[in-house]
Amino acid sequence: MRHRIPDQPAAQLSEAWRFCVGTGRIELALRRDYQDSLALLQREIGFRYIRGHGLLSDGMGVHRPYEWQGARHVHHSFTYVDQVVDAFLERGIRPFIELGFMPNELASGDQTVFWWHGNVTPPRSHKEWAGLVRATLTHLIDRYGIDEVRTWPIEVWNEPNLRDFWQDADEAAYHRLYEVTAHTVKEVDSSLQVGGPAISPGSDEWMVRFAEFAEKREVPVDFVSRHAYTSGPAQHVPFGVHQTLAPAERLLEQFATPRRQLKGTRFADVPVHITEFNSSYRPDNPIHDTAFHAAYLAPVLAAGGEVADSFSYWTFSDMFEEVGPPTALFHGGFGLLTHRQVKKPTYHLYAFMARMGQELLARGDDHLVTRHPDGRVTILAWAPVDPTGETPGPDQHTLRLSVPVGARPRSEAFVRRSTVDEEHGNAYTAWRRMGSPRSPLPHQLEVLHEAAEPARAHLRLPVDDGRAELDLTLARHEITLVEVTPLEDETPPWWDERRLLGREESR
Amino acid sequence: MRHRIPDQPAAQLSEAWRFCVGTGRIELALRRDYQDSLALLQREIGFRYIRGHGLLSDGMGVHRPYEWQGARHVHHSFTYVDQVVDAFLERGIRPFIELGFMPNELASGDQTVFWWHGNVTPPRSHKEWAGLVRATLTHLIDRYGIDEVRTWPIEVWNEPNLRDFWQDADEAAYHRLYEVTAHTVKEVDSSLQVGGPAISPGSDEWMVRFAEFAEKREVPVDFVSRHAYTSGPAQHVPFGVHQTLAPAERLLEQFATPRRQLKGTRFADVPVHITEFNSSYRPDNPIHDTAFHAAYLAPVLAAGGEVADSFSYWTFSDMFEEVGPPTALFHGGFGLLTHRQVKKPTYHLYAFMARMGQELLARGDDHLVTRHPDGRVTILAWAPVDPTGETPGPDQHTLRLSVPVGARPRSEAFVRRSTVDEEHGNAYTAWRRMGSPRSPLPHQLEVLHEAAEPARAHLRLPVDDGRAELDLTLARHEITLVEVTPLEDETPPWWDERRLLGREESR
Amino acid sequence: MRHRIPDQPAAQLSEAWRFCVGTGRIELALRRDYQDSLALLQREIGFRYIRGHGLLSDGMGVHRPYEWQGARHVHHSFTYVDQVVDAFLERGIRPFIELGFMPNELASGDQTVFWWHGNVTPPRSHKEWAGLVRATLTHLIDRYGIDEVRTWPIEVWNEPNLRDFWQDADEAAYHRLYEVTAHTVKEVDSSLQVGGPAISPGSDEWMVRFAEFAEKREVPVDFVSRHAYTSGPAQHVPFGVHQTLAPAERLLEQFATPRRQLKGTRFADVPVHITEFNSSYRPDNPIHDTAFHAAYLAPVLAAGGEVADSFSYWTFSDMFEEVGPPTALFHGGFGLLTHRQVKKPTYHLYAFMARMGQELLARGDDHLVTRHPDGRVTILAWAPVDPTGETPGPDQHTLRLSVPVGARPRSEAFVRRSTVDEEHGNAYTAWRRMGSPRSPLPHQLEVLHEAAEPARAHLRLPVDDGRAELDLTLARHEITLVEVTPLEDETPPWWDERRLLGREESR
Amino acid sequence: MRHRIPDQPAAQLSEAWRFCVGTGRIELALRRDYQDSLALLQREIGFRYIRGHGLLSDGMGVHRPYEWQGARHVHHSFTYVDQVVDAFLERGIRPFIELGFMPNELASGDQTVFWWHGNVTPPRSHKEWAGLVRATLTHLIDRYGIDEVRTWPIEVWNEPNLRDFWQDADEAAYHRLYEVTAHTVKEVDSSLQVGGPAISPGSDEWMVRFAEFAEKREVPVDFVSRHAYTSGPAQHVPFGVHQTLAPAERLLEQFATPRRQLKGTRFADVPVHITEFNSSYRPDNPIHDTAFHAAYLAPVLAAGGEVADSFSYWTFSDMFEEVGPPTALFHGGFGLLTHRQVKKPTYHLYAFMARMGQELLARGDDHLVTRHPDGRVTILAWAPVDPTGETPGPDQHTLRLSVPVGARPRSEAFVRRSTVDEEHGNAYTAWRRMGSPRSPLPHQLEVLHEAAEPARAHLRLPVDDGRAELDLTLARHEITLVEVTPLEDETPPWWDERRLLGREESR
Repeated sequence: MRHRIPDQPAAQLSEAWRFCVGTGRIELALRRDYQDSLALLQREIGFRYIRGHGLLSDGMGVHRPYEWQGARHVHHSFTYVDQVVDAFLERGIRPFIELGFMPNELASGDQTVFWWHGNVTPPRSHKEWAGLVRATLTHLIDRYGIDEVRTWPIEVWNEPNLRDFWQDADEAAYHRLYEVTAHTVKEVDSSLQVGGPAISPGSDEWMVRFAEFAEKREVPVDFVSRHAYTSGPAQHVPFGVHQTLAPAERLLEQFATPRRQLKGTRFADVPVHITEFNSSYRPDNPIHDTAFHAAYLAPVLAAGGEVADSFSYWTFSDMFEEVGPPTALFHGGFGLLTHRQVKKPTYHLYAFMARMGQELLARGDDHLVTRHPDGRVTILAWAPVDPTGETPGPDQHTLRLSVPVGARPRSEAFVRRSTVDEEHGNAYTAWRRMGSPRSPLPHQLEVLHEAAEPARAHLRLPVDDGRAELDLTLARHEITLVEVTPLEDETPPWWDERRLLGREESR
Repeated sequence: MRHRIPDQPAAQLSEAWRFCVGTGRIELALRRDYQDSLALLQREIGFRYIRGHGLLSDGMGVHRPYEWQGARHVHHSFTYVDQVVDAFLERGIRPFIELGFMPNELASGDQTVFWWHGNVTPPRSHKEWAGLVRATLTHLIDRYGIDEVRTWPIEVWNEPNLRDFWQDADEAAYHRLYEVTAHTVKEVDSSLQVGGPAISPGSDEWMVRFAEFAEKREVPVDFVSRHAYTSGPAQHVPFGVHQTLAPAERLLEQFATPRRQLKGTRFADVPVHITEFNSSYRPDNPIHDTAFHAAYLAPVLAAGGEVADSFSYWTFSDMFEEVGPPTALFHGGFGLLTHRQVKKPTYHLYAFMARMGQELLARGDDHLVTRHPDGRVTILAWAPVDPTGETPGPDQHTLRLSVPVGARPRSEAFVRRSTVDEEHGNAYTAWRRMGSPRSPLPHQLEVLHEAAEPARAHLRLPVDDGRAELDLTLARHEITLVEVTPLEDETPPWWDERRLLGREESR
Repeated sequence: MRHRIPDQPAAQLSEAWRFCVGTGRIELALRRDYQDSLALLQREIGFRYIRGHGLLSDGMGVHRPYEWQGARHVHHSFTYVDQVVDAFLERGIRPFIELGFMPNELASGDQTVFWWHGNVTPPRSHKEWAGLVRATLTHLIDRYGIDEVRTWPIEVWNEPNLRDFWQDADEAAYHRLYEVTAHTVKEVDSSLQVGGPAISPGSDEWMVRFAEFAEKREVPVDFVSRHAYTSGPAQHVPFGVHQTLAPAERLLEQFATPRRQLKGTRFADVPVHITEFNSSYRPDNPIHDTAFHAAYLAPVLAAGGEVADSFSYWTFSDMFEEVGPPTALFHGGFGLLTHRQVKKPTYHLYAFMARMGQELLARGDDHLVTRHPDGRVTILAWAPVDPTGETPGPDQHTLRLSVPVGARPRSEAFVRRSTVDEEHGNAYTAWRRMGSPRSPLPHQLEVLHEAAEPARAHLRLPVDDGRAELDLTLARHEITLVEVTPLEDETPPWWDERRLLGREESR
Repeated sequence: MRHRIPDQPAAQLSEAWRFCVGTGRIELALRRDYQDSLALLQREIGFRYIRGHGLLSDGMGVHRPYEWQGARHVHHSFTYVDQVVDAFLERGIRPFIELGFMPNELASGDQTVFWWHGNVTPPRSHKEWAGLVRATLTHLIDRYGIDEVRTWPIEVWNEPNLRDFWQDADEAAYHRLYEVTAHTVKEVDSSLQVGGPAISPGSDEWMVRFAEFAEKREVPVDFVSRHAYTSGPAQHVPFGVHQTLAPAERLLEQFATPRRQLKGTRFADVPVHITEFNSSYRPDNPIHDTAFHAAYLAPVLAAGGEVADSFSYWTFSDMFEEVGPPTALFHGGFGLLTHRQVKKPTYHLYAFMARMGQELLARGDDHLVTRHPDGRVTILAWAPVDPTGETPGPDQHTLRLSVPVGARPRSEAFVRRSTVDEEHGNAYTAWRRMGSPRSPLPHQLEVLHEAAEPARAHLRLPVDDGRAELDLTLARHEITLVEVTPLEDETPPWWDERRLLGREESR
C-alpha cells in the first residue's frame, strides 16, 4: 500500500512535545557538563521549559535561619537560584517551577528521598513555608520581571501520592500545602500560574479529589499535572534494573486521563501538563540508551499533542543522581544525552521532531508528514517494536509514500535522509562493541561522539504530476527523518559531468 | 631615601608563590562558575597545581560497594574524577592530590566535618582503603600516563592534628594511615611522590614526630606539608565572623618551620609545601574581600619563596561550601574571585606577581623589582598595613626608586601603572556603596566587574645615565604594579602635535 | 546655575543616531578584523544598518560576462555578497544598500576613484545595468526573504555631484541612472525602498533639482539622502592631512537642509537620511583619533534626531583603504575603532549614547539626560570645544544638575561615572606616549587596549525630596556618562563596617 | 593474497606530507572565511608551514614611498603583515616566506600576473629591493624573535622560469635577484635560511644552472625548491577547464628530481622542498573537488617523504582569486576546503594521514600501515584509479591484511572505519544532486556540511595469535582509514544483553 499524502495540511503540528523537558535536581544545573548539554539540546531541539526537583532543598541554599538578638529569623538567599535561572534563560529555556522539597530546618520530620536526601515531610510551619514561597517568587520577579515570570508555570510538590515523595502519601496534608501555596502565589501576583497535583500513575483518583477540593475551597488552579510511565517492577542487578514495558499507547492513554476526568468540572479547560513521562521510571534501566527506545516512543511524540498540552520527557541528561553518581558512561540513565554530551537514539527522535515543518500533512501508524513554509516536505518514520521483548521486532519494515512536492509539471526532488537504528546514530552499540569502557579514554569518547551521529544519505527522485514516490525500508528499531525538497537545477548548459575524470554521476 | 635598584639581578624570582592554589571540595570542580573562574585565573595568573579536600568523599562517587552472588564487592568509579581532572588539565593546571576524606561505607565511624559532611574517621579496613588508593592511582595513570601523574604530589589526609578533621586527632592512627597509603602509592609506581602530614598551625611537634616515625619505620616521604594562618579566635555575627590578625611575618615564620625542624634528619632536603595559607582560616571573614588583605599579603608573596618550596593560597574561588552555600555575593569567602568571576584585591596581587620578570633586581619592605628578558623593569609596591586594625594605616606612603632602564646614553621611558586600593580595583567597596546587594542584578554585576579592574595610568619619564627616577605615592592599602619600558620614538620628523586641533601633548 | 531636570519626560529619545553607520568598501567586510570590530560595535552600541561603497565593484565578483557559443552572456555571482550579508545579519546589523560603483566590463569609461580603483563612469548599457540590479535584488530576496529585504533602504550611487565620484559630475546622467534603477527596483518588488541623490555638501541645489526631476518624470523616491562634513581644505604631510573645522552646529544645519528644501514638494514627508557625516572627510586626518573629536560631536549626536531621520557616522572602523592600507595603527582614519579593535574616544561617545534611557528628560548645551524604565537616570555630559583650535578649550568645565530619583521620601543614590578625556579612555594619548609605534608589539597592544577603556568611578549621593544634587567637573575635551540609581540598602542590621580591619567606609 | 603486516616497525613515518601547505595570495589571509578554514585545518590536520604569493605586493601595503622636503623616501609598513603572521601563529602554523611579487613603485615594468595584478618585473633598484627585504625581515625578528624567524624558510620569488611570473623568464635577472636577496637575508641574520629557485615543472635545467651559479658566485643556498604538477593542456569552458592527467607516480618522480640533479654538488645535502604540488595547476578544474582526486593522490602522500623533505599541497582553501572571485561554491578550486569550510575528499586524505601513527609498519600499492604508542594500528587504504579517465576505475577493490594487535594470547579487537568515496564524505556529489546551487542557501549548506563528513562504521574482530584478519572492500575511488584497537572488555559478569528489550547484540 502506498500512502497518498494530501496536498493540503490537516492542521498545524502541535508543539506539546517540546513544551517541557525534565532535569535532575536543580542544583545539578550549576554544573558544566549539564550546562553544555543543555546548550546542545537547545541548539538542536529547543525546548520551551525545564522542570526538576529540589529548588528549595538545602543544596540550593535558599532557606537560611539564623539567630540574632535572641530570636530566630530566616534569610532567603538566591545565590544559586540566580545562577541556575540565568543559565536557563541564556540557553533559551524557561523554568517550569516545581516547589519542593522541604528545607531541613523547615521540615516537620526527617524522612528523605534519593541518594541526595530530599526531605519529603510537610512544613513544620505553613506560615514559614508561605514566607519561603513568597520570598522566592518576589525575588524572581524583581530579577526577571513579572512579564517573564508569569509565563512560568508553578507546580506544587512532586508525586504526593507516593509515600517515598510525601510522608505517608497524606492527601489531606497535600491539599493543605497546595492551598497555602496557591494563595501565596496569587498574593505575590494574581497573574502567576499555579497548579498540581503532580501525581504519578496509579492513583488517578487523586486528580478527581484534587478538583473537588479546589472547587469546594475556591483554591486557584491554573493547570493540572500528572506523570506517565509504562514499566513493570524492577528486576535488580548491581547498579541497574530490567523491567517489562507496556505498549507505548498506554502513555497516550495516561496523557488523556486528566482531560477526561475533569470534564464537566470547573477545571475542564485548564491546561493539562504531563510533567514527567518516560517508558521506565528507573534511572538505571539500560532501555533508555537504546534504539528500541526511540522507536518505541516515536508514535507518542507524534500523537501526544492531541490529548495533552505538554508531555515532558524525564530527563534531558544523565547528569542525575537519584541513585548516586553514575558508575559508567552508559548506565541506563533517563538522559537524552549521557555525560560528555554523547547523544542517545531518543535524543535524535527529539532532534528529528525539531526539524519537522509547521503544517501537518499526515499521521499514520509508522509515519508523520509535515511541510515547511518553503515547500520542503519532512517525514518522520519509525519501525514497529515489540514492547514485550519476546521478539526483537521485524528485521525490516517497508513504508511507501506518495509525497506532494509542488505544482510545477515535471522536475525532480532532492531527498535527504537521516537514520538511527541499532547500527547508526547509536553510541550505545559502539560502546558495547568497545567493551563497555566505564570511563572512556579521550580517544574512545571521540569514537562515541562519531558513532552517535545518524547515518546520512541523499538521492534524487523523479517528480510526476507534482508527486514523488518514496519507498522507505527501515531496519529494526529504526527511526528516520526524510526531507524532500523540490529541485532547482542550476547546472549550466555547457556542463558535461562525463568530462570529469573517473566520474559517472548517478542519480 | 631613594632606593638605587642594581643593574644586575641578584637571583631568579622564585616561582613558589604560584606553585599551588587551594580549592573548595573537589566535587565543586564540576560546576560551571568554578570552571569559568579557573579559566580566568589560569589566563591571568597561571598556577601550576590545585589542591582541595574530598576527592574520595561520597559526592565524587568513587567507592561503590555492591552485593553480587551473596558477596560484598567494591567497584571503583571515576566518572566524576575524570571530568574534574580533564577540566583541570584543559585549563593548564594539575592536581596536587589530597587523599581524603573517608567514603561513608569504608568509614569506621560517622563523625563528619563541614556542611557537606566529609567523614573524618579512619577506614574500617586498611586493606579496602589501600585498594581504593591503588585503584584511583592506577586509573589516573591509565588515563593520563605515568609521565604526567608522577608530577602530581600526593598528600595523605588533611590536618589530622585537629579533632574536627581526624577523629580524636589520633596521631598513631594517622601514622598508620600514612604508612599504608605511602606503601600503596609506591607499589603502584615507585616514582610517584607521597607526603604529609598536612598539619595546621599549633601542633608543630607533629612534624618532628612524623619524621621520626617515617625514619624508624622506613616509610617513604617525598615531601612534607603544613599549613599557615594568622587569625585569632572567631567573633561571630550571623553568616560571618571577625578576627584579629597577627602581623604577616608570622606567615613567613610558619613557612620556615618545617625546614628548620627537619634539619639533620633524613628529610632535610625534601621539598616543603605549605599546602594551605591565608590570613584567616574562616570562609566567612570579610577581611578576605578587602584591599587591606592584598597589601597585608604582598610581602608574603614577595618573600615566601625564600623559605618554602610552595605556599598555596586557600582558595582561588568563593565557590566553596564548608559553612554552606554563600548567602551574599560578598560573604568573606577565601576566594581570589567571588562568584561570577568578580575579582577581589588579592586576585590582583597574584595577577601582578604573574606579570613580574624572571630576574630579581631588588626586594625591600615595600617593593619587589624584577626585569623581563626584553628589558622591561617591573615593580610591585605596597603600602604598609596595621594588622591590629587599631589604625587604618597611613593615608599615603611614598616610595622612591632609581630604576635602570638600559645602556643608551639618553632617552625616555614609558611607565604604565596599575593601582588597587580602597577605591580602585575594589569591587567590595563598590558593592558596599551600592547597598550590599546580596544577589546583584545583571546591571549591578556589570558595575562590579568594572569596579573590580585596577585603575590604569601611564606617563613618560626622562632617562639619564640609563636610569629613570620613579616617585610613587601609594594610597592607603594600595598595591601597585609599575612597568618601566625603554622608549623607542617612531614619531616621524614631519609630525607636529600642535597642529592637531585642541591638542597639547603633555608628557 | 543648577539645571533642574524635570520629573516627567519631554519625549522619547530619538534613535536616529544609531540608525546607520558607514563602512569602508563592502569587500573589506570579508575580513576578520572587520568582522571582529563589527561584533564588538554591535555588542556595545547596536547600529541598525551599515552602508558602504563598492557592492557592485569588481572585487565583489558580481558582474561576470562570459562567451558561450559565440555570444556574450553575463553571469551574476553572489559568492562574496552572501558571505558579507550573512556576516552583517549574524551580528544584528542590516545592509543600507548603496548601488555602485560600476563593474569594469559594464563601464563606459575607465575613470576610477580611490587606491582600490572604483570605476565611476555610467554604464555602457543601461539595460545590462538594470539586469545587474534586478539579479542582485532578486537574489537577496531569494536568500533572505522579502520581509527582510524590504526593510533595507536602497540608495542609487554615491556623491554624483563630485567629479571624483561620477564622471563629469553629470547631473542628467545621474538622473537617468536613478530613473532606470528606481524603476528596476520597483519591478522586482514594489515594497522595496529606493532613494537618492546621496550628494556631498556644497551642491545643495542638486536636491531641489532631484525632487523636480522625480516629480516630473514620476520616478519613485522613498527617501532622500545627502552627506555632511565640516572640514576645510587639506594641508598635506606624508600619509596625513590637517584641516580646519567649522563649529559642530554646521553639521546640524546640513542635516536639516533636505527637509527644508523639500517643503511643499511631493517628497515633503519622505525620510531624510544623512548617509555620511563626520568632521573631516579625509581618512588620514588625526583629529578622528582624539578626545576633542568626541566632545566636538557630542552635541550633534544629542540633537541630530530632531532634524533628520538618520545620520550615519562615516565610518565604524579603520579597516578602510581609500588612500591605501594604513601605515600606522593610528593614522587619522574615520574609524570608531582602529585596527585590532582599539577603541577611540568617539567610539565611547556612541557607546555612552547606547546606554541612555528611552525617556528624554532634558537636553542642554553640555548635557543630555534620560531615564530607563527601572528608574535609573542617565546623563551624557561634554566639555565645550574650540573648533578653531586657536585655544585648547577650557581646562575644566562645571555642570550642576538636580536629578529626580524617585518618590521615596529620603534615601541615597548610587552614582556611576565613566570618563573619556585627554588622559582616559584615550588610546591615542597612550600611543603617543609610547613613542607612536606604527606596528605595536603584542605587549604594546595590551597597554593600548587598557588605555582605551574609560576611567570608572562611583560614589553615593544623598537624596532629598526625591532629588540628588550632582556636581560634575569635566576635564578638557571630556565626555562623561553618569548613571544615577536609587539605592536599596540591604546591609544587615548587625553589620559594622568598622569591625573590618583597616577599613573606614567613605561615602 | 593477504598482506602480513610485520610486528616491528620498518621506520618512523615521514612528516614531509605535512611540512607545508599552499595558500592564495597572502592578503587573503586577512579574511574571516580564510582564517576559519585555517583553524579547522590546523585542528584536524596540523600543517607546520604555509606558503603563498604576494607578501610584498601592493595589497599588503608594505612598500610606501613618499616625498618629504623635496626627496623621495620609502616607509615600510607592516600593518597587514603583522595581522597575517599573528593569525598564522595563533593557529599553530608558520610562514614559509616567499619574497614577491614586485611593489608597483619599485617595479621596472608594468607586466602583471593574475586577476589581482601581481607585478612580475625586476626591481628598478636592487638597492631599494634589498632595503625592502631587510626592513621586512628585521621587523619580523623584532616582533617574533630570531629564534622563531630562523625556523621560517625564505624562498626567492616564484616560478621565474615562466614568462607569466617573471618578465621574459630572464634567468640571469633571476640569478641577480637571488644573489642580492640571499646576501641581504644573511646580513640581517646569518642563521636565516634562504633558498630557490622555485621553478615550475618543464625547466628542470634551471635547477642545475642555479646550483652552478650559486657555487661559482658563492651565494648562500640553504634549501632548494621546485614545483610538481601532472596535468595536460587546458580545455576551456566558461569559468572552468578540463585537463588530462599523467599517472600520480609522475609527481613522485618530479619530487625526486632535485636530489638527483644536485648529487655531487655543494648542495647535495640541502633540504629539497616541493613548494607547490597538485594534479592540475588550474584553480578552475573540477577534478580538485572529487573523490577520484583523493584516491589519485593517496599513494603520493604515502610515499613522497621518501624522496623530498616536503611537498606542499597547492592550496588549502578555495578562498583564492587568481582567475577572479569564484562564481560558484564548487568551481574546481585547489582548496582542500571550499568556501564556508566545506571539506572536499582530498581534505580527508590529509585528515586521515594526520591520524596515522608514528611507527611505519608497512607500505603497499594500496595501503599504508602504522602504529601509535598505545598499540592502535592505523591503516590508510585506497582504491586504484585510472588517471586517463578512459575507465571509471574498478567498482570494487579488495584488500586483505593480517594485522598485529599485541601480545595477549587471545582476545578481540575493536575496528573503526572512516570512508570517503563517490557517495560518502563527498559534498561535491551532494551538491551535484541538489542541482549545483551556485550560492547555496543556509539550509543547503547544512546538507553539504553533513554530506562532507566520512561515513563511519565499527565492528569487532577476533584476535588469534596476536593478529586480526582484516578484509576490506573499497568502493570506486574510495579512501578509507581503519583503526584497529586491542579490546579490553569491562562488561561486568552479571550483564546479559539479552535481557534488554528488543536487543540482540551482534559483533
